[in-house]
Amino acid sequence: MRTDDCVIGIDIGGTTTSLGFVDRHGVLIGEATLATDAHQPADRLVSRLCDNIEKLRATLPPRTGIAGIGIGAPNANYLRGTVEKPVNLSWGASVNLVELFRQRYDLPVAVTNDANAAAIGELLFGAARGMKHAIVITLGTGLGSGIIVNGELLYGADGFAGELGHTTVDPEGRRCACGKRGCLETYVSATGICRTVSELLAQRSDPSRLRDVNSNDMNSKLIYEAACGGDSIALAAFDTTARILGMKLADAVAHTAPEAIFLSGGLAAAGDLLIIPARRYLEEFLFSPYKGKVRLLRSDLPEATGAILGAAALAWQEVGFGSAHPPLVP
Amino acid sequence: MRTDDCVIGIDIGGTTTSLGFVDRHGVLIGEATLATDAHQPADRLVSRLCDNIEKLRATLPPRTGIAGIGIGAPNANYLRGTVEKPVNLSWGASVNLVELFRQRYDLPVAVTNDANAAAIGELLFGAARGMKHAIVITLGTGLGSGIIVNGELLYGADGFAGELGHTTVDPEGRRCACGKRGCLETYVSATGICRTVSELLAQRSDPSRLRDVNSNDMNSKLIYEAACGGDSIALAAFDTTARILGMKLADAVAHTAPEAIFLSGGLAAAGDLLIIPARRYLEEFLFSPYKGKVRLLRSDLPEATGAILGAAALAWQEVGFGSAHPPLVP
Repeated sequence: MRTDDCVIGIDIGGTTTSLGFVDRHGVLIGEATLATDAHQPADRLVSRLCDNIEKLRATLPPRTGIAGIGIGAPNANYLRGTVEKPVNLSWGASVNLVELFRQRYDLPVAVTNDANAAAIGELLFGAARGMKHAIVITLGTGLGSGIIVNGELLYGADGFAGELGHTTVDPEGRRCACGKRGCLETYVSATGICRTVSELLAQRSDPSRLRDVNSNDMNSKLIYEAACGGDSIALAAFDTTARILGMKLADAVAHTAPEAIFLSGGLAAAGDLLIIPARRYLEEFLFSPYKGKVRLLRSDLPEATGAILGAAALAWQEVGFGSAHPPLVP
Repeated sequence: MRTDDCVIGIDIGGTTTSLGFVDRHGVLIGEATLATDAHQPADRLVSRLCDNIEKLRATLPPRTGIAGIGIGAPNANYLRGTVEKPVNLSWGASVNLVELFRQRYDLPVAVTNDANAAAIGELLFGAARGMKHAIVITLGTGLGSGIIVNGELLYGADGFAGELGHTTVDPEGRRCACGKRGCLETYVSATGICRTVSELLAQRSDPSRLRDVNSNDMNSKLIYEAACGGDSIALAAFDTTARILGMKLADAVAHTAPEAIFLSGGLAAAGDLLIIPARRYLEEFLFSPYKGKVRLLRSDLPEATGAILGAAALAWQEVGFGSAHPPLVP
């Protein structure tokens, strides 16, 4: 490994896939975006990604080596190197992405889910740098999470640790796409806050500009804008979201006792509207030995490239850079 | 460290304190019990414990060395070596038990809370042997927990990780001694099941022998006996307890993804009455990637001496035996 080496970070989404060359300081020195073509088999995407890697590589200084490849993907299992039953990709039961890439590159390759990649990115390049115990929450369509324990991402017995989006808020609560009821992500996510608005519109009678928006058109951006304009329903929706988030984060603290929790993703962009009440509720729900000790912060990785940086951080960790422990995958 | 060395395991309770010499196989080769005298300062208890250690040592084979001392105590903080604001002991804000013992013995000394000690005991000498990821729940007056991650007890940023008894079941629920409402231990513990019986007696009108017991005399043993006799209120209380336990254990799985969860302590002695429905509810509440993968088991350490064995296991771990990592305390 030379000091001018890079890794490749790849973020696979349901619609678009991004890749970038990232140096060991977390600087993105080249990137590309392509359509995921979710209905195509995985090897087609891998093939197109490899073409893009070579094209990008040709534009970089000739001494630039590639030390490894890291991939963030939905339903990815780090321990097995697989993507399993992804909801928005026609890839079938299980695809071993690590093997597919290693057929083309004799390099360390690792895959993990988007939220885990975000957590590793925060640990290596973001505000969690140097922390031993932290939790990263991604608030997008759903709620993802990555848990840092003893300076490392926690995978657990089967590679699926850190799924706080599917902890239970209310066993008789909202139906979740996962088949359960009352999961945290049905309340705290971009879609969750829309459901909360619907509920508030039914329960309350105060006027709200959100009464002019039909359910299909409702989104968290509209709610955010209404809240910024002082709309009482929108403000109440943020307060409800913050309260449930604070309560469940207090539960999370009672498990792993992190020094900080980071919020990232679309809904986290609501900033103070969400994070200030969430801090208050978190503190309220914390068991007393933890009170005043856990910081709730926004991720400081750039929203647009954070996912690539997270995947790149995974790759750097695989090759043994920025990790207290040796790499797990050769 | 010679192969015939022992460690000393000490379990400090509100009423009695036990100590024992334990070899590296987890065999208790000598033990003693003394009154805690909770109103006396901590150094008096330490002094009496040291006297008892010497008395016991005199009865053992002359080659028996002591490799270290492990202590399980309420509100203990492993990272600081302290017992902090113990509710049932007049020890003040903080007592450094490790220092007090090291004034008498030039040996590795470590302290942790009872549930953590139980978890380390399970890991070294019990059914969790060889496991990388497990959770141990102690069901006594309250609900304690110790979380094993990557083969080690998890302490978190401040030494207080693993307090599942104070996760929230219902934010508007029962008042907890900790000052919060709806904590898991107000439902799932020896006292929690008594509160559930009171609630059921109020809600339902079926006859029950528990209607003859006043609140102050109610205890989990009476409820257990009534349930064994087919009492419908007692059976419903176990079912309610098991459902809440299953739901919150499913949350715990979504954090650290253990391969098994172990129940120990008084209420766990109810055995099948609790564990069979708890398994069913756990499975029901598990997020699908975990389904069918997490075993819920009873601890196989002996009830009477489990706490000493747990404290002894902590000591063995401190001296680097039975641990994947080097000892943290010199």
